[in-house]
Amino acid sequence: MAELKKIIIDTDPGIDDAMAIFLALESPEVEVIGLTTIYGNVYTTLATRNALHLLEIAGRTDIPVAEGSHVTITKGTKLRIADFVHGTDGLGNQNFPPPKGKPIEQSATEFLTEQASLYPGQVTVVALGPLTNIALAIQSDPAFAKNIGQIVLLGGAFAVNGNVNPAAEANIFGDPDAADIVFTSGADVLAVGLNITHQVVLTDCDRDKLAQSNGKFAQYLCKILDVYFGYHHDAYSTKGVYLHDPTTVLAAVDPSLITCVEGVVRVQTIGITRGLTLFYNKQKRFGEVTEWSDKPSVKVAVTVDAPAVVKLVMERLMKS
Amino acid sequence: MAELKKIIIDTDPGIDDAMAIFLALESPEVEVIGLTTIYGNVYTTLATRNALHLLEIAGRTDIPVAEGSHVTITKGTKLRIADFVHGTDGLGNQNFPPPKGKPIEQSATEFLTEQASLYPGQVTVVALGPLTNIALAIQSDPAFAKNIGQIVLLGGAFAVNGNVNPAAEANIFGDPDAADIVFTSGADVLAVGLNITHQVVLTDCDRDKLAQSNGKFAQYLCKILDVYFGYHHDAYSTKGVYLHDPTTVLAAVDPSLITCVEGVVRVQTIGITRGLTLFYNKQKRFGEVTEWSDKPSVKVAVTVDAPAVVKLVMERLMKS
Repeated sequence: MAELKKIIIDTDPGIDDAMAIFLALESPEVEVIGLTTIYGNVYTTLATRNALHLLEIAGRTDIPVAEGSHVTITKGTKLRIADFVHGTDGLGNQNFPPPKGKPIEQSATEFLTEQASLYPGQVTVVALGPLTNIALAIQSDPAFAKNIGQIVLLGGAFAVNGNVNPAAEANIFGDPDAADIVFTSGADVLAVGLNITHQVVLTDCDRDKLAQSNGKFAQYLCKILDVYFGYHHDAYSTKGVYLHDPTTVLAAVDPSLITCVEGVVRVQTIGITRGLTLFYNKQKRFGEVTEWSDKPSVKVAVTVDAPAVVKLVMERLMKS
Repeated sequence: MAELKKIIIDTDPGIDDAMAIFLALESPEVEVIGLTTIYGNVYTTLATRNALHLLEIAGRTDIPVAEGSHVTITKGTKLRIADFVHGTDGLGNQNFPPPKGKPIEQSATEFLTEQASLYPGQVTVVALGPLTNIALAIQSDPAFAKNIGQIVLLGGAFAVNGNVNPAAEANIFGDPDAADIVFTSGADVLAVGLNITHQVVLTDCDRDKLAQSNGKFAQYLCKILDVYFGYHHDAYSTKGVYLHDPTTVLAAVDPSLITCVEGVVRVQTIGITRGLTLFYNKQKRFGEVTEWSDKPSVKVAVTVDAPAVVKLVMERLMKS
């Protein structure tokens, strides 16, 4: 039997994080070897609690949870917590009981660098929140960018408007300095941005199907999805929700669901477009040295088979 | 006979500026009532000299030339002069004799505000360089933004890479603060960016046709086009040149050649994406106040009938 792709999910659960984690656990192509936590949809302490809770729901308490950074990489930046999207508990205001389990002693950064060094080239990090933990791993271990198999990240808004403001997507806005470190690290990075995830919508009708399913994940998710649907209705007037995190997991699980372009991405870290991701397609040869010159290339997703992604999400979340 | 549309061309000639000025003079739909000058392809002093020279070539010394600003609106910024695109004289290194004429006593800003106030709603400014003069007109006369008919500007790179660096287009990069003033002034602004002008190419073959024509403009332009073709070949590997300025003139002359979207444009004025134009399409309602909130909308060109533009450019430049 071929070795399964090892995946670490860096996550700030988060309603669509919950979907993404369950989806990864139900994906036979991959083995989830750990969760690392980060602020974003909630503060890091709550992200850790929610990660443990979700693994207990899934009956997968064998998977370690390593707590990540509580602050941005340039300390002192006020965090932007998206509780208005996910509820104050991050999971649709359901007041779930506290988890029984505890995070491991290692920090997220320690766990990431250790696993990458144990299994060089074999571990994919699926990063679903601000990129602080990944940037800290890059800074703390000069071999990490080389050792890590791939970093598949939900982040950026390539040639489309952001979701925090017209310029910036939430995860990059959460820690722009960390994101710039990751994009220029030389690691094998695949960015899945809003240009992709805004094409992948779970409709009201899909949600009804989930509700009618007997699957434990489907039943659980239907409880927490209300707040997420309400936010989308108010902000976008859509009858459905964007599958940001599940799409990113599936891009890691099955790369044939997307197509990519390669080029250099830099992140604007100050001013009115703070958090903007700017992709250089290398079509023009600039006479002058630019901030994109001599930086390593990354992959940016530009098309997605959205119906196939939704179909896989539905099938796998209704399976168990 | 219907009143012709009055046009003032704000220009930094420049090889494609020369084409654009000749094209406007050969367009029966409009009356060119003045040229104002600005730095960009050359310094302002040379832009004024070249504007006078081009009007003498055209036999149109009746048209006034008003000299514009020599510095950016936030003084002290080092100017970026694109002599590597247009030649050190701005006109293909042809060493033309100095013009006989002189600019008028009025500054560009004085001329712009006076004409807008003399003919409220009837004057279109076609801005082909950095937007310093236009921003100064907005600042010096509170009625200018209302009095001016339309500002059709060559500037920005909407959802595409820039031409100074991956983030910024040359005219906006030339004075980002001025550009942000213009975009947020409340005037009727139409931006024609690189997303449009990179579709409009004058090919080697078109140039051969110009050379075979007996038209005085065609003959003159064939002399100066060498440097411009050489630059494009080196930077873009294209067998042809982008018709930035002529396309912008034609967008003002015949708006049916393009289609637009409306939304708010802000300009990043600092950092690695200084000079970036960020268009907000108003599709998402942001819960938080953003730098785009409550700002007036402008028009941004998104499609162009490129073959029709090239055909018009060719026909009109070979006519006389």
